[in-house]
Amino acid sequence: MEKNIEISLLYDFYGQLLKEQQRQAVTLYYNDDLSLSEIADQLGITRQGVRDSIKRSESALYNFEDKLGLYKRFREVEAGLYEIETLAEKLKSDYDIKTVEKIISTAKSLHE
Amino acid sequence: MEKNIEISLLYDFYGQLLKEQQRQAVTLYYNDDLSLSEIADQLGITRQGVRDSIKRSESALYNFEDKLGLYKRFREVEAGLYEIETLAEKLKSDYDIKTVEKIISTAKSLHE
Repeated sequence: MEKNIEISLLYDFYGQLLKEQQRQAVTLYYNDDLSLSEIADQLGITRQGVRDSIKRSESALYNFEDKLGLYKRFREVEAGLYEIETLAEKLKSDYDIKTVEKIISTAKSLHE
Repeated sequence: MEKNIEISLLYDFYGQLLKEQQRQAVTLYYNDDLSLSEIADQLGITRQGVRDSIKRSESALYNFEDKLGLYKRFREVEAGLYEIETLAEKLKSDYDIKTVEKIISTAKSLHE
């Protein structure tokens, strides 16, 4: 199993939809960086049980994002907000109507 | 059963996580405004089956939002983006450093 930064990010987003034991296993594995055996000891299940739980959690997290795409959407909005901030910072020292227009079009592009 | 605008909004957000038959029942009931009996005929299940399916779907949609809160979060971001647009429109005719600062603080408040 390869530890994957994407799983941590999707977990922050959709983790509450996982079962309690899945959440524990994913947190101990991805956040606390414990080994499968250490997690097995801590949760009182087999090492294979831990592995299965993490695998199922990963599939579920990818499935939530495939179906809803909300993580991708949030990332786009975040990027747009940073762009708006940068543009507005520029306006502070250097007023320019084109920069104002760009702020407006960026904000518009981020909502429905 | 009372038809509820909130359910339609949550359905647009989380509907893809429902089962296929639940999606059909919710869509026919909330979007197409069919009666339970009409939906029962169309799906080939009992009227009580339709009612149960819709009730379960409603619970599931509320549960997704209780756990994830993403719909609320999106609504807040949308409101903030409209505010940014309004502020920037104001800047076009009336440049004012305070308005620029407000755009920056609004954008900052909307992301982590």
